[in-house]
Amino acid sequence: MSDRLVIVGGVAAGAKAAATARRRNPAANILVLQQETDVSYSSCGLPYHLAAPEEIPRSRLVARTSETFRADGIDMRTRHRVEEIDAKQAIVTIRDLNSARRYTESYDKLLIATGAEASRLKTAASLTAPPIVQLRTLADADHLVTCLTGVRKLVILGGGYIGLEMAEAACKLGLDVALVEMAPRVIPSFDEAVARMVEAMLRKHGVELFTGARVVELDRGHVVLDNGVRIQTDMVLAATGVRPCTALATAAGVDLGSTGAIAVSPQMTTNVEHVYAAGDCVESRHVLTDRPVWMPLGDVANRQGRVAGINMAGGHASFPGVLGTAIFKVFELAVARTGLGLAEASAASFFPVRETIRMPSRARYIRESKTLQLHLTVDQHSGRVLGCEAVGEDAVDKTIDIMAAAIWGKLTAADLFDLDLAYAPPFSPVLAPVQAAGEVLNKAISTTRLSAEPSVSRDTP
Amino acid sequence: MSDRLVIVGGVAAGAKAAATARRRNPAANILVLQQETDVSYSSCGLPYHLAAPEEIPRSRLVARTSETFRADGIDMRTRHRVEEIDAKQAIVTIRDLNSARRYTESYDKLLIATGAEASRLKTAASLTAPPIVQLRTLADADHLVTCLTGVRKLVILGGGYIGLEMAEAACKLGLDVALVEMAPRVIPSFDEAVARMVEAMLRKHGVELFTGARVVELDRGHVVLDNGVRIQTDMVLAATGVRPCTALATAAGVDLGSTGAIAVSPQMTTNVEHVYAAGDCVESRHVLTDRPVWMPLGDVANRQGRVAGINMAGGHASFPGVLGTAIFKVFELAVARTGLGLAEASAASFFPVRETIRMPSRARYIRESKTLQLHLTVDQHSGRVLGCEAVGEDAVDKTIDIMAAAIWGKLTAADLFDLDLAYAPPFSPVLAPVQAAGEVLNKAISTTRLSAEPSVSRDTP
Repeated sequence: MSDRLVIVGGVAAGAKAAATARRRNPAANILVLQQETDVSYSSCGLPYHLAAPEEIPRSRLVARTSETFRADGIDMRTRHRVEEIDAKQAIVTIRDLNSARRYTESYDKLLIATGAEASRLKTAASLTAPPIVQLRTLADADHLVTCLTGVRKLVILGGGYIGLEMAEAACKLGLDVALVEMAPRVIPSFDEAVARMVEAMLRKHGVELFTGARVVELDRGHVVLDNGVRIQTDMVLAATGVRPCTALATAAGVDLGSTGAIAVSPQMTTNVEHVYAAGDCVESRHVLTDRPVWMPLGDVANRQGRVAGINMAGGHASFPGVLGTAIFKVFELAVARTGLGLAEASAASFFPVRETIRMPSRARYIRESKTLQLHLTVDQHSGRVLGCEAVGEDAVDKTIDIMAAAIWGKLTAADLFDLDLAYAPPFSPVLAPVQAAGEVLNKAISTTRLSAEPSVSRDTP
Repeated sequence: MSDRLVIVGGVAAGAKAAATARRRNPAANILVLQQETDVSYSSCGLPYHLAAPEEIPRSRLVARTSETFRADGIDMRTRHRVEEIDAKQAIVTIRDLNSARRYTESYDKLLIATGAEASRLKTAASLTAPPIVQLRTLADADHLVTCLTGVRKLVILGGGYIGLEMAEAACKLGLDVALVEMAPRVIPSFDEAVARMVEAMLRKHGVELFTGARVVELDRGHVVLDNGVRIQTDMVLAATGVRPCTALATAAGVDLGSTGAIAVSPQMTTNVEHVYAAGDCVESRHVLTDRPVWMPLGDVANRQGRVAGINMAGGHASFPGVLGTAIFKVFELAVARTGLGLAEASAASFFPVRETIRMPSRARYIRESKTLQLHLTVDQHSGRVLGCEAVGEDAVDKTIDIMAAAIWGKLTAADLFDLDLAYAPPFSPVLAPVQAAGEVLNKAISTTRLSAEPSVSRDTP
């Protein structure tokens, strides 16, 4: 009497769910259907593999191979695509991409972990257009490696995480790089000051930057922008965002949420009985706003996959939601965020105050010390810390993670100042950036309370 | 009608209190009496100055000079020692160390910030004994610099933070170094596994190690141990601990606490009216146990000085206590702790479970990734995280600070796993060490609850 668990997708959430269900229930009958050749690999590692293929060969990105899964008694079928879910009969229809054979399998519990896909470029392209590539899967990376031979100039479309990480990777490969972003600045969801620092870093490394510009045509070895600029290039990398893969789910009657991704309960169940969903194809609850957000990130997918795996194996687990924490690196600069910005906090009925501070990352006399810039959001009524963006060349990840733990613990600005953090000159200034943030936010709250005026983006030296 | 604030001591707590009081109350009459020539310097930076005096000259350790204080209207008198406090008359008796003149000053509010001093070595020393130095003040460092000329071999007594940091500094200066520790291992308050890693690191860098050994004599260019070993040396650095400077306070009727340091309220007041105390001479409340602990650390002193300064200037502030967070570096290794160990937690009536985990500090395929080892304490009744020791060559400070914030927020093991931390391969593995810790602790709690047996130091791969 062992349940038959069928999992659609085997990269992050799917692979994690399969491995977790196996550990929890050695008797479970587990089938994973993965349309790609590769399973359980780090999508987030692709730019690092491309930048240094000898140091980080593709095999290092693979956490567990198909063989490992099979050795654990998981029926891992790669190049098998699920084309239809019949939820009434609890059957999936599968296409074996090797033989083109179509067949069905039944399930007791089904997990939809179909992930997200790169947005398609909708631009007129002539026959002489430069080749367009994208970077979402390990196969994309393989394709890129073969295409790169002979390429000297690369145009990247999109100034989000992937575009920026690939700009760095391409520079490290010795390519000339131009980056085109539709919005007036790169990473438009971040504070403008942060975006400007990223842009300065790109220019410092020789990346040509075109912001507020839209591609209208790809023609005769050129990218043509709406402002008339023609950029000669050997190749175009489209990094213009991702969207959740939901067609299979919706065809089976699975509801999407307001973000356009699949709506799930904290137990990762959907509205359809016996059908779970997890990873980049689902939306999450924002812990601070209690509203749905779509966070297609590897760590979220992994943790959701674990929750789905436990529950499908008969256990009890919940995914508590997210704070919207994210980080990326572009050359020497790290950029990260957690929690809410000013506009998001206002929209969620907080009374936010925003402050900016700059602090040394370590004792000033330590060589590795760099300036760390924090953009902070606090609720002036409760004093609760709501959000932080951090940018700098040192201690960005540390600071954001302390903030994420503080926000999770519902700490106030006063608490931030009171935190007993680890001080020694090689690791922190005597007043840590997080404590300094607490002091500044506390002052801002009192000032704002007195003046009853919102305080926005005041700077402190 | 401005208060006369008199502050005894001008290094960390005293200097911070003076600067804070000045900012809070521009009219206050502030007098600082500092027996040393230097003020407001980083004691914690001394080993780094000594190791690289050209990169970190002594001037860089000074946060604010006497002149800066005076320019702020603070009457900063250096080389003036307070010899007596008459709390009934609210008068201090001062010795001007330049002229030997003795005089008095009255106060409305007094701060005792006399700090701590190096323990004296009580060992028979012949006339031909190698010179003994210590490292507590900037003047000690100056003295050490002059003494070091011609020194090729240094014996360090004491395997605590200062002894270890100085072992590294001396190695960097090209000296032969031996370290002697009475206890069976260095840093005896840490987990034995952590101490063994530190010892291995010392040996890797050529430091000769003598543990479980007591110095019985200094004679004819040698340190003589109780096990009969004679270590030839040109100089001895005594780093055998510190003790609070409390003589001035006790003579004035100020009560000490059970730790031997001055007992203070969260407002930094003592039992004597109008007399405050802060910094290395006072004890703190441990936030988890509600018991007094003595934590002579620079960051604690600074924050206590700030609280004292605010209150002395007529404001309202409290020092909330400590978690016992501390960190130090020895060669490539960082070692840190926060919260309670197993014995401390049991003594404080918790029901602690202890676990050890090893995790990569970043995605395994990132060159900078190193193994991070965590020793964790959790309360099996409440699930609350109680403590963490961390050791490794990367992300130790980050991990301890996340843990410190989590413990401050009363987070449970389950919360640790749920934290939304920042993931990208250059910064963290997809399951962060703190999240992995949460998972392991959670499992340990359930297992222990089932078996009703304490679980100690189980390792996970």
